[in-house]
Amino acid sequence: MIIIMKQGATEQNISSVTNYIKEHGLEVHLSHGKEVTIIGVIGNKNLLNADHISFMKSVDRILPVTESYKLANKKFHPEPTSIKVGNTSIGTGNLTIMAGPCAVESKEQLITIAHAVKESGANFLRGGAYKPRTSPYAFQGLEEEGLRYMQEAGKETGLATICEVVSLAAIEAAVKYVDMIQIGARNMQNFILLKEAGRSGMPVLLKRGLSATIDEWLNAAEYIIAEGNENVVLCERGIRTFETATRNTLDISAVPVLKEKTHLPVIVDPSHSTGSYKYVPSMAKAAVACGADGLMIEVHNNPACALSDGPQSLNFEKFAKLTTELKPFCQLVGRDF
Amino acid sequence: MIIIMKQGATEQNISSVTNYIKEHGLEVHLSHGKEVTIIGVIGNKNLLNADHISFMKSVDRILPVTESYKLANKKFHPEPTSIKVGNTSIGTGNLTIMAGPCAVESKEQLITIAHAVKESGANFLRGGAYKPRTSPYAFQGLEEEGLRYMQEAGKETGLATICEVVSLAAIEAAVKYVDMIQIGARNMQNFILLKEAGRSGMPVLLKRGLSATIDEWLNAAEYIIAEGNENVVLCERGIRTFETATRNTLDISAVPVLKEKTHLPVIVDPSHSTGSYKYVPSMAKAAVACGADGLMIEVHNNPACALSDGPQSLNFEKFAKLTTELKPFCQLVGRDF
Amino acid sequence: MIIIMKQGATEQNISSVTNYIKEHGLEVHLSHGKEVTIIGVIGNKNLLNADHISFMKSVDRILPVTESYKLANKKFHPEPTSIKVGNTSIGTGNLTIMAGPCAVESKEQLITIAHAVKESGANFLRGGAYKPRTSPYAFQGLEEEGLRYMQEAGKETGLATICEVVSLAAIEAAVKYVDMIQIGARNMQNFILLKEAGRSGMPVLLKRGLSATIDEWLNAAEYIIAEGNENVVLCERGIRTFETATRNTLDISAVPVLKEKTHLPVIVDPSHSTGSYKYVPSMAKAAVACGADGLMIEVHNNPACALSDGPQSLNFEKFAKLTTELKPFCQLVGRDF
Amino acid sequence: MIIIMKQGATEQNISSVTNYIKEHGLEVHLSHGKEVTIIGVIGNKNLLNADHISFMKSVDRILPVTESYKLANKKFHPEPTSIKVGNTSIGTGNLTIMAGPCAVESKEQLITIAHAVKESGANFLRGGAYKPRTSPYAFQGLEEEGLRYMQEAGKETGLATICEVVSLAAIEAAVKYVDMIQIGARNMQNFILLKEAGRSGMPVLLKRGLSATIDEWLNAAEYIIAEGNENVVLCERGIRTFETATRNTLDISAVPVLKEKTHLPVIVDPSHSTGSYKYVPSMAKAAVACGADGLMIEVHNNPACALSDGPQSLNFEKFAKLTTELKPFCQLVGRDF
Repeated sequence: MIIIMKQGATEQNISSVTNYIKEHGLEVHLSHGKEVTIIGVIGNKNLLNADHISFMKSVDRILPVTESYKLANKKFHPEPTSIKVGNTSIGTGNLTIMAGPCAVESKEQLITIAHAVKESGANFLRGGAYKPRTSPYAFQGLEEEGLRYMQEAGKETGLATICEVVSLAAIEAAVKYVDMIQIGARNMQNFILLKEAGRSGMPVLLKRGLSATIDEWLNAAEYIIAEGNENVVLCERGIRTFETATRNTLDISAVPVLKEKTHLPVIVDPSHSTGSYKYVPSMAKAAVACGADGLMIEVHNNPACALSDGPQSLNFEKFAKLTTELKPFCQLVGRDF
Repeated sequence: MIIIMKQGATEQNISSVTNYIKEHGLEVHLSHGKEVTIIGVIGNKNLLNADHISFMKSVDRILPVTESYKLANKKFHPEPTSIKVGNTSIGTGNLTIMAGPCAVESKEQLITIAHAVKESGANFLRGGAYKPRTSPYAFQGLEEEGLRYMQEAGKETGLATICEVVSLAAIEAAVKYVDMIQIGARNMQNFILLKEAGRSGMPVLLKRGLSATIDEWLNAAEYIIAEGNENVVLCERGIRTFETATRNTLDISAVPVLKEKTHLPVIVDPSHSTGSYKYVPSMAKAAVACGADGLMIEVHNNPACALSDGPQSLNFEKFAKLTTELKPFCQLVGRDF
Repeated sequence: MIIIMKQGATEQNISSVTNYIKEHGLEVHLSHGKEVTIIGVIGNKNLLNADHISFMKSVDRILPVTESYKLANKKFHPEPTSIKVGNTSIGTGNLTIMAGPCAVESKEQLITIAHAVKESGANFLRGGAYKPRTSPYAFQGLEEEGLRYMQEAGKETGLATICEVVSLAAIEAAVKYVDMIQIGARNMQNFILLKEAGRSGMPVLLKRGLSATIDEWLNAAEYIIAEGNENVVLCERGIRTFETATRNTLDISAVPVLKEKTHLPVIVDPSHSTGSYKYVPSMAKAAVACGADGLMIEVHNNPACALSDGPQSLNFEKFAKLTTELKPFCQLVGRDF
Repeated sequence: MIIIMKQGATEQNISSVTNYIKEHGLEVHLSHGKEVTIIGVIGNKNLLNADHISFMKSVDRILPVTESYKLANKKFHPEPTSIKVGNTSIGTGNLTIMAGPCAVESKEQLITIAHAVKESGANFLRGGAYKPRTSPYAFQGLEEEGLRYMQEAGKETGLATICEVVSLAAIEAAVKYVDMIQIGARNMQNFILLKEAGRSGMPVLLKRGLSATIDEWLNAAEYIIAEGNENVVLCERGIRTFETATRNTLDISAVPVLKEKTHLPVIVDPSHSTGSYKYVPSMAKAAVACGADGLMIEVHNNPACALSDGPQSLNFEKFAKLTTELKPFCQLVGRDF
C-alpha cells in the first residue's frame, strides 16, 4: 500500500500517518518528492484499514499495490489448474464444449439434444432448470424436475452435466443430480450464494457479472475458494456497454488477461454475449484461437420454438458444422477435441 | 408488438407470420411500405412468444410497443404512491431522509448515531447488518445481533428503521426487528430474493443495479409487486461508467424519468454513488431540487474509524449542516421536512 | 511517479531502474516491502518516459502521482477564474444562462428568439451555424451567414453571443462575428482545433466528449491554455452509458469534482444530456443547486418545427417559467441572476 | 418509420399526424391495437422531419425502420468491396497486415522497421507523422518530414503506406507522400475532416470512435462515400468501457456484425485496443479466426525506447513469431497471406 500526501503536508501530518501504521505493527518508507511525499507501507496490510488512513490530515490518495484475492491469484499458484468433472476435465490440453438448451423444457427434448450434442463432440450437457428472467411474467424453469431430466440425460449419454443455481435450495437439489453447478451473471456478487457454492464442494462455473471488472470477478471466485473449494471455472459471457448491435459485448481480451492473472480455467459463452446464433460460430472460433479452455453454447432441437433464448441457439445442423470447423483450430492451439 | 419484415419478403413469408399470430388468437394490421412491410400485432402479446416469430422466414426485427411491467407502470396507476412506514410516510409532500452508518458496529455506536441523525431531522435510521463486500476478507456484518440493535435504536428515538437483506434467512430475521427492508444493488436481479421480499409484506427499498437500465429496474420492482406487495420505493445509487473520478456515476436524470414512468417513490443515495463525503452535500441538494422523494445518506460518529465505507460517510456536524441547508430547498419544491 | 517492481525482482533489476532514473537527473527512494519493492521518483518527471521504464526487467506497474495538466489545475491556481465576455462574466457570483436555438435557421427567427430569451433573463445567445450531424444527409447549418445573424441579434439585444466552431475556417469566421466560441463534444480531442482555439484568443466553451474522463477533459483544456488563452469554460453535456431512457447520462457529480480539480468555470447543458425538453427544468435546477456556474439551454420559437434538436428545445413559455423558478435557487446558492 | 401513439389518443390526434404525413407526399397505414394505435409511414422518409411529428399531440414514440446510411449499406450493395492500394488489395481473399511504429521517429528507424515487417509478411507500413496526444506536453509527431520518410520507406521496400491525418493541411500533405490515409478514433465524428478525406479520393482507413456505436460508425463512413470516394476500410480498435485491465475493450463481435451490415472491408487493431504487447498475438489470432480482413499492428525496433505507445508495440522477433503463427489460421479461413 502506498500513501500519497497532499502538497504542503507538514512533518506533523506525515508523522501522524507513519505513527498510525507503526502502531498496527507495520513499517514505513518515506519518499520526499519534489511536489509530494509518498509513504510506502511494509507488512501485512490486512492489519490496517486504508479508509481510516484516508481521513488523516493531508492524505491525498491511497494506492493498493497487491491484489486482494490470493487463492485465485496466479502469483501464488503459477501452475494452471485442471478440474475433473465426471469423465472429463477442464483446463490445459483440452477444449471443453458445454452445449444444450437455455432451459430444460421436457425429458424427451433434453435427451434428444443430449444425443445430438454428444455426437458433435460436446463433453458437457448444459440446461437451465432455474431461470432468472428480467420479467416476472416469463417462463421460470422446471426446477427439480428439470434437474432429474439432466441426470437421466447425463447417464444415457455419458456427458457431464451442468445447471445454474439461484438459491441455497437450488444448490441442495443440484448436488443430487448434476456434476457441476453454475453461478449466473446476475448472481456473481450474490456473496451468500458464492459461499454456499463453495461449501457444496461441487465444481463451480462462475459467470462474469454484466458490469463486473476482472478484479471483482476474481474476488468473487475467491469467495468460493475461501470455503475450501478450488474447483472454479470462469466463464466470460459479455459485458454491458453502450453498443446495442449485440445483446452484450464479448470482452474477448479477458481471456489472455485472465490467463495472466489466475490459474483457473477460462471458458467463453458466445451465445449470451452476442444474443444471436448468427454470431456464435465466428465468436467460438475467436475464443479458441485466443486460448480459451472451452465454450458454452446454446443448442436447441428447434430454436424457433424454444421457451427461452431461441434467437441465440444453434440447431443441431449448425452446431455440428461448428464443431467440425473448430477441430482444426484446436489442433493449431494444441488442444484435444 | 411490431414485426418488421426484410426487404424482398414474399407474400408467403408474410402470411406465415400473420397466420401464426391469428392462430394464437390475436389480430394483425399490415403496412406495405416502400422498402419493407410492417406487421402490427393487436391483442394480448403475452399469448405470443416473440422469439418464435423472429425465426420465421424474412422476419427482420421485432419491436416491443408496450412495457413488460404493468403494476409498477404509471400508465395503469397514474396517481403517485405514498408508502407508510412506522410513523412516517415516503412519497409526495415529504422529504424522507434515511441516515445512519454503512454497517452496524455496536449498540452504543448505533444509538449515538440514531440520536444525532434524529436531531438533525432524519426520519429513518439506516444500518447494515448483512454486508455484501467485494472481498471475502472484509468485514461482513453483525447479522441478527445488528438487527436487534436497530430495533432498540428505533424504539429509543422513534425513527423508522431500514436494513439490507441478502438472503431468505436475512428477510426472516429482518421482519422481526425492522420497519423496512432493502434489496441492494448487487441483488437487484436476484429474482428469488425479490419474490421473498414481495411475500414478506414488508415495505421494500429497491436499489438500482450497477448496470441496470431503468426498464430492468422497473421489471425488478414488478417481481416484488406481483407477489402482492405494493410498498416498493426505488433508490438511485449510481451506475457503472468509464469515469473513475467518482466511485459510480449518479444518474440524476433517472429521477424525472422515473417520475414519468412509474407511480413509485424515488429516493437518491449520494453516498454510494459518489464514494466521497465531499460530494454528498452538493448531490443531495441536486436530488431535492430535481424532485426526489428522499435521500439515503451515510452518517457515522467517527468516519475515520468506520468499519466500512468511512470515506463516503458524513460526521454529525457535516450532516447537521447539510440538513439545515436542505430545508430551504425543500420549501422551494414544496416538501415538508 | 511510483514504480512497483514484480515479486522476485533482483537487486540488479532494481538498480537498472534506479540508474536509469538517476541518469536522467532525478532521484529515487526505495521501499522494500514484504511482497514487493517500490521505487519513488523525485524530480521533474517530464524528463523521463514512463513507457521506457515499463519495459525494464521485473517492472510490474507505474503509477502517476501528479496530474499531467498544470495550467488548468487548481493546485497551482487556487482562486476560481472569472471570465469576461461582452458585458457579462462567467464564474463565481453569477449564474450565466446561454439560451437559443440548436441551429440558426433565419435572421427573423434568431432575432425573435434573442428578444425572448433576453426578456426571460438569459445573458448569452447561443446558436449553431456549423452543425456536426451524425448523418451526412441532415441539415448542416448556415455557416458564415448564420454568424452574421448572430452578430446582429447580439447587437440588437445586448446579449453576448456564442457559436460552435468545427474547423480553422469556422474559427476565422467566428472571431469576426461572435463573442465566444464553442468546441463541441465530438471535437473535444480534435487537438488541432483546440490549439487554433487557443491561438484565437477568444473565450472558449469546451464541451466534454461523449466518453471523455474528467482527466482527459482537463487535458483538452490544457491544450487551449497552453497557447496563452486562459479564457476557458467547461460544459458538462452528458456522457455515453448503457442507459437509453435519456439521450446521454448527465454526469452531475462532474460539477463538484471539477470545482475541486480546476479553477475554470463549469456550466451544464441539460438539453443535450437528456435529449428531451421534459427533463430540462428538473436538470437545470439540479445543476444550479449543486454549484454550476451556468446553464446552456436550447430554446426555440417553435420546437415542433425546428430544423434540428426540436425535441429537446423549450418554447418561450417553458423557458420563461424555468427562469422564474430558477431565481430562488440562485438566491439559495448565492448567485446573481 | 413507425409512429406509436399514446394510450387514449383521440381520432383527431391521429388524423393530425396522418394529415401531416400525407401533406408531405407520403402514405400511412393504421393499426388500431388493443392498447395503442400505430401509424406506419410509407414513402421516402427523407421528406419528413421525425422531430416535428414527435411534437404532435398524443405521439408517444417514433421508431426508425431503415438505416440512415445507404452507400455503406450491404442491403443496397450486397457484394463485399475489395480496395486496391499500391500493389496490394484489402478485402476478400487476402489478409492485410499493416505494421509499423506508432510514431515516425527518424528516417533510419523507419526504414529499419519497414524492412523487418516486410520480411515477416506485412503488406503495409504504418507510421504516425501527426500524433493526437491526450496531453499537450507529449510528443506530437514529425509532420511533413515524417511523411517524406514514409514515402522513402515505401519505395525502398515496395510496401503500401498509411498515415493518420488530423487536419485539412495534413490531408494535403499526405496525398503527396502516402498511399492511404487514416482517420483516427478521436476524429471519427470530425465531419469536416471526413468530407475532406472523401474529396481527397485517397483510400481511407476509418477507425471507430471510442464510444461510437456501429451505426454511428457506418454513418461516418457514409460521409466519406457521399463525397464520391468508395475506398473506405473500417478498423475496430477497441471501445471505452468500465474495464481497466486493458486500455480499451476490443469489440470483437463488431467484425461479424459489420460483415452483415456493410460491404466495406474490416480490419482489427489489437495494439490500441489492448494497450499491451502481451495481448496482441492472442487478439490478432482471434480477429483472423472470426473473419477480419486484416490487422493493424504496432511494431518497433526497440519498444523500450519508443517515443509513443512503446508498451503496446511488438519488437521484430515477436512480430515475426506472430506472423508465422498466423499463417495456418489464414489457411483455415481461406485467406492468402
